[in-house]
Amino acid sequence: MCLAGCERAVREAVTRRGFVKAAAAAGFAATGVAGGTALAAPKSFTNVVDLTHTMSPEFPTFNGKPGIEMQREFAIRRDGYNLFWWRLSEHAGTHLDAPIHFSERGATADKLAIDQLVVPLAVVDIAYKAEQDADYLLSGDDLALWESRNGRLPEGCCVALYSGWGELLVTDEARYSGRDIDGTFHFPGFAPEAAEWMMRERKVAGIAVDTLSLDNGPSRDFKTHKLWLASGRWGLENVANLGKVPANGATLVVGAPKVKDATGGLTRVLALV
Amino acid sequence: MCLAGCERAVREAVTRRGFVKAAAAAGFAATGVAGGTALAAPKSFTNVVDLTHTMSPEFPTFNGKPGIEMQREFAIRRDGYNLFWWRLSEHAGTHLDAPIHFSERGATADKLAIDQLVVPLAVVDIAYKAEQDADYLLSGDDLALWESRNGRLPEGCCVALYSGWGELLVTDEARYSGRDIDGTFHFPGFAPEAAEWMMRERKVAGIAVDTLSLDNGPSRDFKTHKLWLASGRWGLENVANLGKVPANGATLVVGAPKVKDATGGLTRVLALV
Repeated sequence: MCLAGCERAVREAVTRRGFVKAAAAAGFAATGVAGGTALAAPKSFTNVVDLTHTMSPEFPTFNGKPGIEMQREFAIRRDGYNLFWWRLSEHAGTHLDAPIHFSERGATADKLAIDQLVVPLAVVDIAYKAEQDADYLLSGDDLALWESRNGRLPEGCCVALYSGWGELLVTDEARYSGRDIDGTFHFPGFAPEAAEWMMRERKVAGIAVDTLSLDNGPSRDFKTHKLWLASGRWGLENVANLGKVPANGATLVVGAPKVKDATGGLTRVLALV
Repeated sequence: MCLAGCERAVREAVTRRGFVKAAAAAGFAATGVAGGTALAAPKSFTNVVDLTHTMSPEFPTFNGKPGIEMQREFAIRRDGYNLFWWRLSEHAGTHLDAPIHFSERGATADKLAIDQLVVPLAVVDIAYKAEQDADYLLSGDDLALWESRNGRLPEGCCVALYSGWGELLVTDEARYSGRDIDGTFHFPGFAPEAAEWMMRERKVAGIAVDTLSLDNGPSRDFKTHKLWLASGRWGLENVANLGKVPANGATLVVGAPKVKDATGGLTRVLALV
């Protein structure tokens, strides 16, 4: 199996660019995948599950204003093709929180290593507890319960909180953001202590929620955001369909936009199962 | 292995929602992956290659104007966190062309089926020919040569044109768009006849180029765009690192943004090798 560029690289190397290039080309062919990031272990899958909500101006946001506005520049009948411009918040819809979102010098979205974006997925089901208490905080006990059933959290994984909130976008949208008459949000999130435990005791690359925020609704200090993102790790918010993937064993693909200086951005999130 | 949502679904089914739900929950647990899209055959991989260029206001575009503008709304020292808004063209940087881009009723980006976004990748190396002729059109002969070496194009694959143009963004950016003194672009593309052959004789889901356009630079009629997209298939433009993946055997992940009504959009493109 020859790399697509291999033939050309060898040709160039032995014709006009001399021996240094030839040596490089030989290495290129020998390694099999130049520029690729090797995973710790081979992955395999037979199914793909889309963990992404459809983004639109109607998608719930923190400030209640549209997270995207679309402006048509070209229309096919008039111009021969269709094209919109978007005005888009980096933190709306199913999206990435890059470390820089809550830190002064953390990684921007474009700087996240590719092996941090294709990682084992651990889904912690707190849906029953969240149904009893909309402000429920995923705790160390929930992580311990997950490990008692599934073994130790995989190295470099993403830990996703499944609260069942994603389904509310269809069944009860007002409850998704859950604003009360005082303007306080009500939805579950990660307890800061659970985030600290994952940082200290396990090797977790990212955390994901099926709600508007890594912190729970009433949080005013965004302590989980601050701890987690400032430690160089990433988050995903408004993730969909977490009830449709196994608690353990899937591979998460974080299709985050690669935009220079970005603090996050609208992301295609897939699970390979 | 229990699905994350399974426990809750069973509990709800047998408590307050009765037998119909219970039957659904049983099916849910039995199928293993509810809502997933089964692939034709299991896939496995050990490496991930990023096929995405970093997007910035400097990234070359068709009209020479920035494809993205970023506007800071929040700054961490002042507001406690960082956040930008983007003004973003749907067709700049490494991006998707959805069928609706060149058709009246084709699928928008959000409507592409997930099994069309995780597909076998076939890379056709025309770099040597493109070096001799910047306007080179990938032909049926190039596809026949690929098949003589690698076997029949895999069902539902993406056929990617590797011209070596992606590397010009580092070495010779002016040549990437290749505008001459008359304003005509010069870069390679897919011949419309090759696109027609793939539509008629093979089952190809999408095509990808490491240049600004599916059609070659001098094209004025965008015939490949029109044929291909209007047939319900998708395209990817400004793809990176196609010289770093094998000609056959990789799996392409098209991390296209899921935006209602979108004609395309900035996309994270990965190869699983």
